[in-house]
Amino acid sequence: MLIIGEKINSTRERVRKMIEDRDSKSIQELASHQINAGAQVLDVNSSAANGNKEENMKWLVKTVQEVTSSPLCIDSANPLEIKKGIETYKEISGKALINSITGEKERIERLLPTIKKYQCRVVALTMDERGIPDSSQTRIDIAHKLIRVLTDSGILLSDIYIDPLVVPIGTNDKNGVIVLDTIRGIKEAFPEVKTVIGLSNISYGLPERRLLNCVFMVLAMSFGLDAAIIDPTDKRMMALIKTARTLLGQDSYCAEYIKAYREGKITFCSK
Amino acid sequence: MLIIGEKINSTRERVRKMIEDRDSKSIQELASHQINAGAQVLDVNSSAANGNKEENMKWLVKTVQEVTSSPLCIDSANPLEIKKGIETYKEISGKALINSITGEKERIERLLPTIKKYQCRVVALTMDERGIPDSSQTRIDIAHKLIRVLTDSGILLSDIYIDPLVVPIGTNDKNGVIVLDTIRGIKEAFPEVKTVIGLSNISYGLPERRLLNCVFMVLAMSFGLDAAIIDPTDKRMMALIKTARTLLGQDSYCAEYIKAYREGKITFCSK
Repeated sequence: MLIIGEKINSTRERVRKMIEDRDSKSIQELASHQINAGAQVLDVNSSAANGNKEENMKWLVKTVQEVTSSPLCIDSANPLEIKKGIETYKEISGKALINSITGEKERIERLLPTIKKYQCRVVALTMDERGIPDSSQTRIDIAHKLIRVLTDSGILLSDIYIDPLVVPIGTNDKNGVIVLDTIRGIKEAFPEVKTVIGLSNISYGLPERRLLNCVFMVLAMSFGLDAAIIDPTDKRMMALIKTARTLLGQDSYCAEYIKAYREGKITFCSK
Repeated sequence: MLIIGEKINSTRERVRKMIEDRDSKSIQELASHQINAGAQVLDVNSSAANGNKEENMKWLVKTVQEVTSSPLCIDSANPLEIKKGIETYKEISGKALINSITGEKERIERLLPTIKKYQCRVVALTMDERGIPDSSQTRIDIAHKLIRVLTDSGILLSDIYIDPLVVPIGTNDKNGVIVLDTIRGIKEAFPEVKTVIGLSNISYGLPERRLLNCVFMVLAMSFGLDAAIIDPTDKRMMALIKTARTLLGQDSYCAEYIKAYREGKITFCSK
């Protein structure tokens, strides 16, 4: 289970200001804190910050890489920002991820040269010009198309991360199942291709959101999820992920579970 | 998700004494408490109590049925006790369950006349003379044999509850996956047949057992589990079950989730 730390995201007011103020210290603390909590990759998004968008991304990538050798997930809706981020990125202990390509023709055309040049890992969203499809089969079809486009550009199957796009269950009670079935469908067709989700949309508009997010994480893991963009400092979520891994037979002799318990990381109720 | 309340079990010291003392009031409180907490069926086991075994079961079934119209799960390793329990049981709002038959020839022969006569629901364990198999395929094979034996005796597929037998993950890190794969295999071959588990063995010998039990419950639900023998007064477990149902698309408009939240039943941290 690849944990991608979500916290360096300019849609969060505090982070937006850190970027605009070039507050390296706070950004670097946010990076170190997530790595120490168990993140293996850090998502970096500067899009909401004012100023020169490409310079913001360049500064953000440089600043985060000064304190961690872990790979980054260069996150933007803007292909030029992504290009600048990946140009700036220094490969120390793993390929960067690009977050994200979609099935939209224009977006593919604008991102593909960068993807081809840098042969990075790619998050691919199962949506296209029609929006986010209401059925898992259509999402799987878009995934197939994106996998073809990416492998044609030299990207390895194992470097593709399909995101089946979590949307609120409050608006359609099948929205959970659609994501879960999409994960399973992709893993059955392409065992090497990875699946990734961001969680928090699932619970939008409902009470006890963290409970819904945590349980959906466990369900997604049982359907074959490979990676998640989450807050790694959420101890309860991390405990549930470790516990689910153990119960799914991914933890030899339950050694990781017991180690995590001894380190005080296996806990139900901590915030 | 059928919730079978586990608490009226004579292997618990307090309950054993209640049965030996013919303490109707305490037994009936235990019954009412579980029903109020959301149990739809109550397991009743008197085997560990001293005295006349069949009279104990007869008294227990009568005593519990005085306060609830919910079905009972007549639980014993002894076919004579089961026979006495089912003879005593009055069908008010549903067939009793017999807990349990196994693939062992002698046990089948001794229980089948009772099952045929009363056409009740039956919990069938995936073990036989060889013990509990180490592979899900062998457990599924035993389930197939038991389904054949039971349907040949007139039992409906939908009245059969296969229990794939949860054993501690601490002794073999694949013990969780074996159960999960057995559940899926049975549901794929016989969608009408039910699956049921008791949970607490999974965590035996490991720390934070309730966390392991809760997460295993969520995983089992995602593999198609139909019923569980649990403590329905465990609010956290019940909250996780409701949340998982909602996320698995089994809760129209999330109405049950919202109702449970308003009743204070959706909570992560309560004991």
